Amino acid sequence: MSIASSSTAAEHPPADTVRSPYADAGTNADADITAGPGTDRRARGLRTLDAVTANAGTTVVAGLRDLAPDLADFIVDFAYGDVIARPGLDLRTRQLATVATLAALGHAQPQLAVHIQGALNVGATRAEIIEVLLQTAVYAGFPAAINAINTARRAFAEADGAG
Amino acid sequence: MSIASSSTAAEHPPADTVRSPYADAGTNADADITAGPGTDRRARGLRTLDAVTANAGTTVVAGLRDLAPDLADFIVDFAYGDVIARPGLDLRTRQLATVATLAALGHAQPQLAVHIQGALNVGATRAEIIEVLLQTAVYAGFPAAINAINTARRAFAEADGAG
Amino acid sequence: MSIASSSTAAEHPPADTVRSPYADAGTNADADITAGPGTDRRARGLRTLDAVTANAGTTVVAGLRDLAPDLADFIVDFAYGDVIARPGLDLRTRQLATVATLAALGHAQPQLAVHIQGALNVGATRAEIIEVLLQTAVYAGFPAAINAINTARRAFAEADGAG
Amino acid sequence: MSIASSSTAAEHPPADTVRSPYADAGTNADADITAGPGTDRRARGLRTLDAVTANAGTTVVAGLRDLAPDLADFIVDFAYGDVIARPGLDLRTRQLATVATLAALGHAQPQLAVHIQGALNVGATRAEIIEVLLQTAVYAGFPAAINAINTARRAFAEADGAG
Amino acid sequence: MSIASSSTAAEHPPADTVRSPYADAGTNADADITAGPGTDRRARGLRTLDAVTANAGTTVVAGLRDLAPDLADFIVDFAYGDVIARPGLDLRTRQLATVATLAALGHAQPQLAVHIQGALNVGATRAEIIEVLLQTAVYAGFPAAINAINTARRAFAEADGAG
Amino acid sequence: MSIASSSTAAEHPPADTVRSPYADAGTNADADITAGPGTDRRARGLRTLDAVTANAGTTVVAGLRDLAPDLADFIVDFAYGDVIARPGLDLRTRQLATVATLAALGHAQPQLAVHIQGALNVGATRAEIIEVLLQTAVYAGFPAAINAINTARRAFAEADGAG
Repeated sequence: MSIASSSTAAEHPPADTVRSPYADAGTNADADITAGPGTDRRARGLRTLDAVTANAGTTVVAGLRDLAPDLADFIVDFAYGDVIARPGLDLRTRQLATVATLAALGHAQPQLAVHIQGALNVGATRAEIIEVLLQTAVYAGFPAAINAINTARRAFAEADGAG
Repeated sequence: MSIASSSTAAEHPPADTVRSPYADAGTNADADITAGPGTDRRARGLRTLDAVTANAGTTVVAGLRDLAPDLADFIVDFAYGDVIARPGLDLRTRQLATVATLAALGHAQPQLAVHIQGALNVGATRAEIIEVLLQTAVYAGFPAAINAINTARRAFAEADGAG
Repeated sequence: MSIASSSTAAEHPPADTVRSPYADAGTNADADITAGPGTDRRARGLRTLDAVTANAGTTVVAGLRDLAPDLADFIVDFAYGDVIARPGLDLRTRQLATVATLAALGHAQPQLAVHIQGALNVGATRAEIIEVLLQTAVYAGFPAAINAINTARRAFAEADGAG
Repeated sequence: MSIASSSTAAEHPPADTVRSPYADAGTNADADITAGPGTDRRARGLRTLDAVTANAGTTVVAGLRDLAPDLADFIVDFAYGDVIARPGLDLRTRQLATVATLAALGHAQPQLAVHIQGALNVGATRAEIIEVLLQTAVYAGFPAAINAINTARRAFAEADGAG
Repeated sequence: MSIASSSTAAEHPPADTVRSPYADAGTNADADITAGPGTDRRARGLRTLDAVTANAGTTVVAGLRDLAPDLADFIVDFAYGDVIARPGLDLRTRQLATVATLAALGHAQPQLAVHIQGALNVGATRAEIIEVLLQTAVYAGFPAAINAINTARRAFAEADGAG
Repeated sequence: MSIASSSTAAEHPPADTVRSPYADAGTNADADITAGPGTDRRARGLRTLDAVTANAGTTVVAGLRDLAPDLADFIVDFAYGDVIARPGLDLRTRQLATVATLAALGHAQPQLAVHIQGALNVGATRAEIIEVLLQTAVYAGFPAAINAINTARRAFAEADGAG
């Protein structure tokens, strides 16, 4: 089921056809996700979700629509529209901080994979992501760091495959 | 006492006498912690600990010497000397990622306070730290974010007091 | 700074003067928080926050306005306006589930105290709250259950004092 | 080793043939697990385990008998016989609270699946379970809620298959 | 007062009057908690609780009797009577493993203090306890280890005071 | 990059050919990992890693060398060379404490499997490991204990297969 069918405004087309205006750029680091005609939470959220996670995020959101469509909307409207889209911190630093948080939680490997890809999408390098994960060993222990590195390996391989 | 002398034979002098050469600078953002004559782990660790946490960190380390002197050394040599001093990521981004990790863990408020101060010491703004903590609500829940904001309030007040 | 000054609509007066339309009822269990003239997120959120946590919640929210006013708004608009106000589950069951979640997290004692009071506000009995906390020993361990019981003791004492 | 051989009362036949006396009822919500001839912990525990988890729970318990038979007995005698069977809270509310706890822990997906099935067995609806999981996003973060929803999808599918 | 009498009708007298039969021994390492006339769970549990935690544990249990008397009994009967009293592992190793677990959880400092004292009561040395806590830095991170060391400092000081 | 190429002493050949000097002994309990000609951290770390985890650990370390070679070195030099090799506590007790910590964390099943094997390698019995995991139910909850027992089943089966 596409995101579009669960909403109305022309401002957010079906998820599978959503294209990032930054698609041609090497990265989305300069994406001005707060600009553009759409100013409501839904539009800003979809724009941010796309800029940060590209297909990975829209797939996760679409996958929740069968059982928890409102959770899917909360991710778009609240998580990405209200929080991640805030101008106070650049997307690259936000994603590196998110990667640090998810690696420390330990039980969020699927989300860690999405945000490692997200960090790459907004301009972080693989070396910087590894630095953040390596640092996790100091604060959350070596097991959390080792499992995060293994999740990064899969995320990097997927990024290569999608290249 | 100079950083250099803090890395010589007699090795680390009493922690409480270590002084930061950056004390007069607005921030330590430009501190080249990998430079200088001292190249061993201990000297690099003390230099990094001082650059990041100033008095807060040295106090924590000194406080451990009665029961766990080796843990105190591991913090200096491994955490700061081997990991935090690594050149792959700037100290400001490292501290913001650390703040994100500690806020998510929930049980590390004392360390969160030290690293919020550390983030300020290496160039992060209070607004950026708040952005990172606010984002924690999305990934680790509102209670973790609320408790972290309250810890930040105490850390900021202490920073004002020390001003 | 009061909640009122951070908003405009007459529909949410200063927090400290907000009165629950259920104040006279023994409990808020029957509170129809989705009814009433106010239909936007902010109004529904404030109405729900008041119905569930009474003064405790508004105090927490007001306390965040100095450093993180937007987090305060997210608690009102998203947590209470979008989620807790949902009609799919009665407030009493929601609060007992929240108490179970916070007791298990372990690091959220301040929030646990607020929601134990909240559970009482919406019709749960002290005996039912104790049953939920006791059950925590099975799933999250005895330390989590013991610490939660001690937090409940303080919350109950405060409720008695406010009586 | 089957559960039967580890006990005596005819009231609990071999795990693989155990049938719920409530199997014909739409739900076990009205099951008076404290009634009946068996009054000891073992009998009450097996009766409660069966009422709540049906085959899922007895399978988990039987699966532990090779390495940790006493842990299997503790689950029956203590968890179900002493705690879950307590009269102070109805089984439906207990299971919804358990689902909230396990979703928040994050690392207990196998148990979450068992208790989502258990919640359905004692009268909770799928919509109510989703509400509890959705609420988890507020207190334990979106990753915990998303992973719990995906576990619920598998549990619901299994319930359909067993229908 | 003898252990036997502490398991009879009048039930456990005020915690502050409970005396350990091992009080005069340097340690309780050799305490045969499975021997003695009392063979039921309650007697074995009280004997083990007393052998391991002496006054600290009985105080915790007594403190729960106002709100959750059954949780207090579960600690005695299940935690100490069924689990900790098991003959498969000596009390000293059990307590060191418990200290490792509680230090890693992070949110269980009150219980960590009780079991650090408990480890000393059953023959572990302060140096061995510090080794276990130091090791926690590797698996659960430095913050967990630092906070645990600080809890140990308080527990050791209390032990000195009680000397 | 192989472990060998990252070090020098003949005392640690390529990981895939590493043999434990204790391989012929029933256990490594008596391994004097602090003795021998090699006195630096790397040599002591490799000797300890081999004594504790045999092939399992060297495989984990080797597996990290593609993305995080320095994390691999930190495991050898810091975790095993600085911490686990410390003389203050015997390897058997250290491993049982590590098993207790990893079982409680819940999100570290791969590491739990490695250290359950490690506990066996240094002299702990399967019965003692089960006792430690069983005890986890008291402090971290039954789900953590059940998942740990299932991880132990796989670790024991692998040990049998390698026999």
